[in-house]
Amino acid sequence: MQIFTYERLRTFLEQIFLKLGCSDLHAVKATDVLLKADLRGIDSHGIARMSSYVRLWEIGRINSTPDIHIVHETPSTGVIDGDSGLGLVIAPEAMALAIQKADQVGTGWVAVRNSNHYGIAGYHAMQALEHDMIGMTMTNASPMVAPTFSRERMLGTNPIAVAFPAGQEPPFVADFASTTASYGKVEILQRKKAPVPLGWIQDSQGEPSQDSNGITEGGAMLPLGSDREHGSHKGYCLGAMVDIFSAVLSGANYGPWVPPYVSFLKTTNESVGNGIGHFFGAFRIDAFRPADEFKDHMDRWIQRFRKAHPTKEYPEVLIPGDPERENETLRMAEGIPVVDPVVKDLQRLAKKFSIAF
Amino acid sequence: MQIFTYERLRTFLEQIFLKLGCSDLHAVKATDVLLKADLRGIDSHGIARMSSYVRLWEIGRINSTPDIHIVHETPSTGVIDGDSGLGLVIAPEAMALAIQKADQVGTGWVAVRNSNHYGIAGYHAMQALEHDMIGMTMTNASPMVAPTFSRERMLGTNPIAVAFPAGQEPPFVADFASTTASYGKVEILQRKKAPVPLGWIQDSQGEPSQDSNGITEGGAMLPLGSDREHGSHKGYCLGAMVDIFSAVLSGANYGPWVPPYVSFLKTTNESVGNGIGHFFGAFRIDAFRPADEFKDHMDRWIQRFRKAHPTKEYPEVLIPGDPERENETLRMAEGIPVVDPVVKDLQRLAKKFSIAF
Repeated sequence: MQIFTYERLRTFLEQIFLKLGCSDLHAVKATDVLLKADLRGIDSHGIARMSSYVRLWEIGRINSTPDIHIVHETPSTGVIDGDSGLGLVIAPEAMALAIQKADQVGTGWVAVRNSNHYGIAGYHAMQALEHDMIGMTMTNASPMVAPTFSRERMLGTNPIAVAFPAGQEPPFVADFASTTASYGKVEILQRKKAPVPLGWIQDSQGEPSQDSNGITEGGAMLPLGSDREHGSHKGYCLGAMVDIFSAVLSGANYGPWVPPYVSFLKTTNESVGNGIGHFFGAFRIDAFRPADEFKDHMDRWIQRFRKAHPTKEYPEVLIPGDPERENETLRMAEGIPVVDPVVKDLQRLAKKFSIAF
Repeated sequence: MQIFTYERLRTFLEQIFLKLGCSDLHAVKATDVLLKADLRGIDSHGIARMSSYVRLWEIGRINSTPDIHIVHETPSTGVIDGDSGLGLVIAPEAMALAIQKADQVGTGWVAVRNSNHYGIAGYHAMQALEHDMIGMTMTNASPMVAPTFSRERMLGTNPIAVAFPAGQEPPFVADFASTTASYGKVEILQRKKAPVPLGWIQDSQGEPSQDSNGITEGGAMLPLGSDREHGSHKGYCLGAMVDIFSAVLSGANYGPWVPPYVSFLKTTNESVGNGIGHFFGAFRIDAFRPADEFKDHMDRWIQRFRKAHPTKEYPEVLIPGDPERENETLRMAEGIPVVDPVVKDLQRLAKKFSIAF
């Protein structure tokens, strides 16, 4: 493992995005979104993915000079076609449109089709905070998850993020996959050749499995809840809801037709829409009650939950967003740790594009 | 157990609501919402709750002649004060307002304060379907759930419902609590004096427990995911999100201050808002893409998921809403089974109000 300053990684990634043909503005934005994952400790969604973005660009699935455009709109809704661009630059534009609509009529909702991976969902939801708005987003993703009673992989890890502003307290930011565990956590155990906890995955027959290679060998991730007795049908409902809002509403691919991001999944020849899909929402707080009043109550909510009597397992109850915010402060000051396989990937990219690293 | 026709239960419940002082219109609507739970097989949320509604009316917490009014609105949002009325009649009015706004500007969002229990969430979300809209609702509830790392009960089972219309296929209707299991399921095991599965509840010290009486003895329900390793922090995020949208945004009570519905929880003297809170949303489909196009793709989504290769555990993959719809057809034709303790409750109510049963 090596430690890099934020600045150094930022400069390096911007150069790569420029080499892919991105505009200056897009290179800066894509880097900002991607590195926010590393800053916030969600290492699976940051620079670790850079070589995959390059791979998708090479096979023509990512257009570095997209014509991102509005296809349809009403006072509170819009549909955007991302023209196969980087989700990293399409998503901020879509969220900005949702915010603009919320500013005008109270709430704004934007569905996106023809996009690619958009980094961490939390980044986009948090864009609403500075406008005294609640932000929300979700996206579909590579089919790796089996619905309850299915041995087939039908859904992505389909995350949801919601950000609520507070007053004195830091904002409440939830950002979570609709599966029991993220695929990033499974990948970490694969590298260590360690077993995964029961309830995270199933094998190709739909039986419980602890084999961390299970997913690449025909197995599947499990919806939040793990099994029927523990509510996996609810995790399946969540993942399905994300898929429908993101793709059936926007005109993107859904379910097993989502073009895969991970290299071990084959691309289907059939398609039911364009690219992958996202969904964005913004609620202007004072369209419901005065923003100051809301933020005072959010402070009270947060302070009360933080003071809840803890179990022996952990010294205190956390507020969604606490761990990520602490990581961000720490890593901005002390640097971002990058594991060796990712360092090697970055070195390969540096060589490929003749960039100093 | 006894079987009653839908008609017989309907007439009986309408008479009770009239005895509480409800208008004809409200008695009919409240009965329709309440009995929909029994028809759809969610027995814990139907007539089994009638005696609790009467108890809350007796102690002055339910106002049978409420002045349900809009406190604030914008083109796509509204806040409603339910004047301590039955959630069963406030919720349909709030959902109607959300639908009206979606009709005008694309989406509509209504937050409700000063309400009570509103029956099954799915009823309200489904109101949107006939308008070619997607319906969504959530509500907070009696504090019985411990966030991850908490031994204190801070949240309700806080359900979420979403209804998507389809074309040839029946609609997709998800309606689920943000906990591993519903409290109704725990109550069933209490009556049988049977243990609950590990992962549903914890004891008063925050330790895993299988004691079905655990909740009434200071224990807590667990968020969807059960424990940290299986993603309970995601269930906690969901429950918290429902609480904030329903109550912090509307001006209702939130977290541990929610006035309890179950009799074993004490009412706090302190309050941070009015009554309990709900949240409703409606998306007009053609504010995104033509409704027929969307419904064709929903059919395709549903047909593909239904055909997913099943595990050995169950013959086929279900679509959210399948089991409830089958129950509704069956029970409308063959009657609604009512367990003996509930029959006794209803007999007591019949005697109390001098109604034939």
